[in-house]
Amino acid sequence: MPAASHFDFIHVVLVSPRNPLNIGAAARALANFGFSRLTVVAPYEPHWREVRSAVGAEDLLQSARRAQRLEDAVADCTLVLGTGALTRRQPEQPVILLPALAPIVREELARGGRIALVFGPEKRGLTGRDLAHCHHLVEIPTHPSQPSMNLAQAVAVCLYELATRLAVLESHGHGAPSTGPDRPLHSAASAHSADLERLADVIDQVMLAARYSPSSMREANRHDLRLLLRRLALSAPDARRALGFFRRILHRLLP
Amino acid sequence: MPAASHFDFIHVVLVSPRNPLNIGAAARALANFGFSRLTVVAPYEPHWREVRSAVGAEDLLQSARRAQRLEDAVADCTLVLGTGALTRRQPEQPVILLPALAPIVREELARGGRIALVFGPEKRGLTGRDLAHCHHLVEIPTHPSQPSMNLAQAVAVCLYELATRLAVLESHGHGAPSTGPDRPLHSAASAHSADLERLADVIDQVMLAARYSPSSMREANRHDLRLLLRRLALSAPDARRALGFFRRILHRLLP
Repeated sequence: MPAASHFDFIHVVLVSPRNPLNIGAAARALANFGFSRLTVVAPYEPHWREVRSAVGAEDLLQSARRAQRLEDAVADCTLVLGTGALTRRQPEQPVILLPALAPIVREELARGGRIALVFGPEKRGLTGRDLAHCHHLVEIPTHPSQPSMNLAQAVAVCLYELATRLAVLESHGHGAPSTGPDRPLHSAASAHSADLERLADVIDQVMLAARYSPSSMREANRHDLRLLLRRLALSAPDARRALGFFRRILHRLLP
Repeated sequence: MPAASHFDFIHVVLVSPRNPLNIGAAARALANFGFSRLTVVAPYEPHWREVRSAVGAEDLLQSARRAQRLEDAVADCTLVLGTGALTRRQPEQPVILLPALAPIVREELARGGRIALVFGPEKRGLTGRDLAHCHHLVEIPTHPSQPSMNLAQAVAVCLYELATRLAVLESHGHGAPSTGPDRPLHSAASAHSADLERLADVIDQVMLAARYSPSSMREANRHDLRLLLRRLALSAPDARRALGFFRRILHRLLP
């Protein structure tokens, strides 16, 4: 097991879970694999903190964060990973198969980043709107005849994979986050999701002010913009600079 | 995903599960990862085949085998793997960490073997008596502060690991079971669990007939004998020869 500090930078986010038993079972899986940060976005059932399925994870469930929207839950994260079987739609982001995820997470941790692993509701999974807040999609390789997993089982499988393979990577000589000779020189800290949201807001206003596109296209443009900003993998200084730049443009455009 | 035929030789066995929802969720995990063989030993609830948690695995649950005893469930298996957190007792068999399991399973498949992955009941796990029927124990590496997993989540994690890593081993050029240049020349088929049980029975009778030990020690001796026979990794011809040998001895000892 890696030091606890590692896993403190990996958040599990459950979006609109319907069955509180699944929230409890997900919390238990966090505890099983040494994770502690759980956020529940807009849960269906108000009394989800008291479920009996959170065996050995009662404290974790009590200290779980609650958020109204996904963007609030991932605001302080630098790498947002959406999960799902992705059979119904064509993904707009890069798809990573779960067995290949650990090195990517480790690199982000080494850069001082904070990671969100996002799970959608039981039946329909993450919506296109949810996915626009994700940098990458993670796919659990399931059998084509039955790709849809139970929510808490999917959480357990993802955390098992990360806990086991991050530990293996460490035992092969990789150091703790932000230290050690492996840290690439170019690795400025990644932009937080909240920074990207602010940037998207300003660019959105610029598009309007510049009459870049008809207002009927506004929602579609915002969606594409979110995806683009995440695909760019902006560093925190990059995002700050871009924000200053577009604010300046906006200031110029407005009467 | 490997060809279906591969996974037909890996059986999942649930011993005395108490909550039928867990049986259904375990069945769903089998379907998710391309497995199809489920055996339920002495289930607590008679109506376990109708549970709603077996989403997309209703047929699999209908065709699941039911056994009265673990030894019946694994009778035709050549490699029986018990699972658990193993924190409460000192294991008597070799313990394999789950991330190291796939090569061992692949080797047994290449030898034409049949594998059972055995899960104990929710609260107490496999008993010492159950474990005496296992060749190896498989441990899911969990955090020391909360090692005990939900049954269906443990099944999902084990099957994910096998499905993913067996596929990786195959894509690295290993062939289908019982064929291909990788098959070691010395690999006679492993003895079935039923052969080992028959052998243990005869040796037990020999011990009695030879007054090897007081009858108060009979249960303990049988237990140790079972463990020993599995540790020896007998081939099917080995087991047949030993059975003939001990039958001959017994015939001589009895009046």
